[in-house]
Amino acid sequence: MHRYRSHTCGELRDTHTGETVRLSGWVHRVRDHGGLLFIDLRDHYGITQCVIDPDSPAFKLAETVRSEWVLRLDGDVKRRSPDTVNPNLATGAIEIFIREIEVLGQAKELPLPVFGEPEYPEDTRLKYRFIDLRRETLHANIVKRTKIIGAMRRRMNEIGFTEYTTPILTASSPEGARDFLVPSRIHPGNFYALPQAPQQFKQLLMVAGFDRYFQIAPCFRDEDPRADRLPGEFYQLDLEMSFVTQEDIWETMEPVVRGIFEEFAGDKPVTQEFRRIPYADAIRIYGTDKPDLRNPIEMQAVTEHFAGSGFKVFARMIEADPKAEVWAIPAMTGGSRAFCDRMNSWAQSEGQPGLGYIFWRTENGALEGAGPIAKNIGPERTEAIRVQLGLGEGDAAFFVAGNPDKFYKFAGEARTKAGTDLGLVDADRYELCWIIDFPFYEWDEDEKKIDFAHNPFSMPQGGIEALNGDEPLGIKAYQYDMVCNGYEIASGSIRNQSPETMVKAFELTGLSQQDVEERFGGLYRAFQYGAPPHGGMAAGIDRIVMLLCGAQNLREITLFPMNQRAEDLLMGAPSEAMPKQLRELHIRVQKPT
Amino acid sequence: MHRYRSHTCGELRDTHTGETVRLSGWVHRVRDHGGLLFIDLRDHYGITQCVIDPDSPAFKLAETVRSEWVLRLDGDVKRRSPDTVNPNLATGAIEIFIREIEVLGQAKELPLPVFGEPEYPEDTRLKYRFIDLRRETLHANIVKRTKIIGAMRRRMNEIGFTEYTTPILTASSPEGARDFLVPSRIHPGNFYALPQAPQQFKQLLMVAGFDRYFQIAPCFRDEDPRADRLPGEFYQLDLEMSFVTQEDIWETMEPVVRGIFEEFAGDKPVTQEFRRIPYADAIRIYGTDKPDLRNPIEMQAVTEHFAGSGFKVFARMIEADPKAEVWAIPAMTGGSRAFCDRMNSWAQSEGQPGLGYIFWRTENGALEGAGPIAKNIGPERTEAIRVQLGLGEGDAAFFVAGNPDKFYKFAGEARTKAGTDLGLVDADRYELCWIIDFPFYEWDEDEKKIDFAHNPFSMPQGGIEALNGDEPLGIKAYQYDMVCNGYEIASGSIRNQSPETMVKAFELTGLSQQDVEERFGGLYRAFQYGAPPHGGMAAGIDRIVMLLCGAQNLREITLFPMNQRAEDLLMGAPSEAMPKQLRELHIRVQKPT
Repeated sequence: MHRYRSHTCGELRDTHTGETVRLSGWVHRVRDHGGLLFIDLRDHYGITQCVIDPDSPAFKLAETVRSEWVLRLDGDVKRRSPDTVNPNLATGAIEIFIREIEVLGQAKELPLPVFGEPEYPEDTRLKYRFIDLRRETLHANIVKRTKIIGAMRRRMNEIGFTEYTTPILTASSPEGARDFLVPSRIHPGNFYALPQAPQQFKQLLMVAGFDRYFQIAPCFRDEDPRADRLPGEFYQLDLEMSFVTQEDIWETMEPVVRGIFEEFAGDKPVTQEFRRIPYADAIRIYGTDKPDLRNPIEMQAVTEHFAGSGFKVFARMIEADPKAEVWAIPAMTGGSRAFCDRMNSWAQSEGQPGLGYIFWRTENGALEGAGPIAKNIGPERTEAIRVQLGLGEGDAAFFVAGNPDKFYKFAGEARTKAGTDLGLVDADRYELCWIIDFPFYEWDEDEKKIDFAHNPFSMPQGGIEALNGDEPLGIKAYQYDMVCNGYEIASGSIRNQSPETMVKAFELTGLSQQDVEERFGGLYRAFQYGAPPHGGMAAGIDRIVMLLCGAQNLREITLFPMNQRAEDLLMGAPSEAMPKQLRELHIRVQKPT
Repeated sequence: MHRYRSHTCGELRDTHTGETVRLSGWVHRVRDHGGLLFIDLRDHYGITQCVIDPDSPAFKLAETVRSEWVLRLDGDVKRRSPDTVNPNLATGAIEIFIREIEVLGQAKELPLPVFGEPEYPEDTRLKYRFIDLRRETLHANIVKRTKIIGAMRRRMNEIGFTEYTTPILTASSPEGARDFLVPSRIHPGNFYALPQAPQQFKQLLMVAGFDRYFQIAPCFRDEDPRADRLPGEFYQLDLEMSFVTQEDIWETMEPVVRGIFEEFAGDKPVTQEFRRIPYADAIRIYGTDKPDLRNPIEMQAVTEHFAGSGFKVFARMIEADPKAEVWAIPAMTGGSRAFCDRMNSWAQSEGQPGLGYIFWRTENGALEGAGPIAKNIGPERTEAIRVQLGLGEGDAAFFVAGNPDKFYKFAGEARTKAGTDLGLVDADRYELCWIIDFPFYEWDEDEKKIDFAHNPFSMPQGGIEALNGDEPLGIKAYQYDMVCNGYEIASGSIRNQSPETMVKAFELTGLSQQDVEERFGGLYRAFQYGAPPHGGMAAGIDRIVMLLCGAQNLREITLFPMNQRAEDLLMGAPSEAMPKQLRELHIRVQKPT
């Protein structure tokens, strides 16, 4: 028999009855039932109930056994009596009558229990991550994560992509976030940087002719920790294709992402055909470029109904500012004064002056719009609004007015609030879409200059002619996001592979050709030696895994995460370096005074 | 038709004759044949010959086209005449008659050519890596590399291993080599380290109950560059298993590695059953723990034949030192004075006093041993040596004497030299074996103390009792290497998962329990809360790829390598940091004075 096990703890069925077996694993729990000791033995594959009676020579040792000890157990497989069969356990039809026990590893008193996985302070969980990871939920999340990543690899390979690994010790590339730096020992005063993303390398691969690249890519950004961002490193499904339009990328990647969601969503429905929503429409309809399409509320402009109306606050706004608009947030089933007042109070708590509304009810057999706005604008305009929004009895609409640039975010939040509070959002679905046609530039109010709205390597729609035109802020980019349930899960673009267009695009943001050469020298040089049209995207793996695990915290789907202070409590990082190390690296520590 | 291509450049066959197609790719070369212009268009998938005649409206543009421009070509597929079919090209049955040309990307004068891939200075190749990577050999090597890694993943998955990704920003762990450090912005004066290997994390995964781990793992060591080592980062196929003996690991991994070699070896034979050679035997037979088994020479001790013999140099040595031995290096077909003298000169050039020999020839119809040693020891001893070594006419044997600890390396080199120079080594084979039973400790002559011979985390054979014994230097470890054609391609061990044994093992090297806790806190802590017996290994991916590509230099199988001065000439790393960055990281540069 094998030194440690003949079977795993998830393997035995009633067909094994009568066999002598050997199992190894952790003591999940020990129970004393009228003299008999029950030991639930656990390994990666499952749990098996093992029993020992006081007559057994191993009983004395069995009595000393505690939770999370590692044991080897030899014994005989017995069929359980019908009333003790456990249908929730794969091995629930049998139990092992223990003949012999070997203690392979003892455990001291546990800093956190595994069985029952009660809540414990996060720092304890992280310091003793090797125990935390034995807990059922986290263990299953991690296994699911590896399966999702495996499925990504498999699906990308199946459609002709090849995984290329790009360097981790590389050059600083100011892509927006802060770099992690690595001092060079051989070149005093110089530093490597860890890649914020393999953006330049994947584009260089296209210039080198590799055609279809992907990578499960580690990315590094030295950002202040946030709830939805792990400090340090994160993973992207990064990909790039040559000789493609953006439609090619959408049509290539939509089945991959849909397939992964369907494979791991359980029985939750997944969007079959991803809508392609222009950025400008997303803002107007959802108040965000990350719309949660599970929320059926779609906003509409109703400016005309308020122009010249008796609701003077809005009417004056519209008169004074040609950019002013009134947007309606239809709230199906929200038609009660209590709900409308609650929304209004919420808006005030968000720093808004309030949230105007109309709600529809039947009075004396007739449908009527109620509330102060309805009173002020009168029944005809109220009815016109109702008809435009397709609302009826028991529904409401909320109104936000002013310059949409200023209020769209709040309107989007009100849409989310109304949809959530009214239970209109079906949580058990995955709603995926593309947001396309992002603006190429945006106005940087702090610096009083034009800056890239997203990826500086993206191709502006209209190419160099558009850049030479009068309205740089009106230029759209071949730039797109994939959004799921209100989260951006991927982002990509067709790249600007023309050296002239690249220089011109940067010029408008105030950077000279020399700046471009200094900052993106490798890529700029490459574009001068035969660059193919190319584009791609990168999907956030951690975010996708979180959505598919239904987890609320990135640390619930990550093996060895750092805490929110960017500390690894398990391994003790970061820590002081030895003076010899610092000397070799030609650096000195200069602590803040 | 698609914007850029209806087919790839490797796709068209004579079955496509008559079709109108669109191709995009790089101009591999342009040839002018009696007015007709031939453009060989290349992409990732192949090369297609395209033709244009002076009557075509696109001819004027075609004449301006230069090597490595990126073009889109529309044209008609024509079957080539029988005398112009190119059987060496997958598309060699057809050519494209060009109707229309679009220039997608021009190329300036090339710093290194792609076509014909002539040798070029390495720095040029690295600076323009995006051009270098278009060259046939390098492009094919990189593709083969990705396929080998893909096969590793597939095979590991097939036998129940799961790929877990371990952190890259982690704690310094003094495993022998120098760490790369990453200053922490949030914790002034503290540093993360990049992992030299995921050793501790994979063991923690076992303690966390994950059972069978593998990873294509990036590893980082800040070592001085060497010919057979890339500066910075390298990749390991890293794996670990719980509840196993070392035999389990050998039996698990042997088919994986053999399978990969067979899959990518072309028609070169691969060892079917890997010999398991104890370290001590490897040293005695091959003079190295990385034997090249393609070399049939096996050394033998022939001490007895020299003891008390007329060859006084050896005889006195044997008399004076009980550790002294004489080893013979049999050299089949090396039986000429010229060859033996050449070996002797070579030994002298290596700093040795010389290399004694006997060679066998037929004189007057009788086989006789010739050379000074044979004269000195006489025909009887000479014949006894011949019989022991199984040599005959035309063969030779070389002799090395003294303390084997001192001479075994040189003896191994002489074995290699003789085997190579005599053409005894069959280069077109992959000979794989295990070297097992490595010593646990070794004597550190500089520090005058015992130190770990290999992995401090390995289990000593005999466990804590052996450590408590009198002969620590005689203890073997459950530690093994896999060797191919003279290169170590993998290394592993059964781990020491007992906290007491771990402390004792370190104690003998002069480290206290407190040192262990400080240096390996995470792992030491983990072993106290239920650690399973476990073990594993790590295979050097770069080395395996190099062997399978037949490449002589790691840079020939790596996408974006640094040069031997640890510089990335393409991206310009390492480079100076901005003062703001250094301030944020609480460090100052202190250049050597």
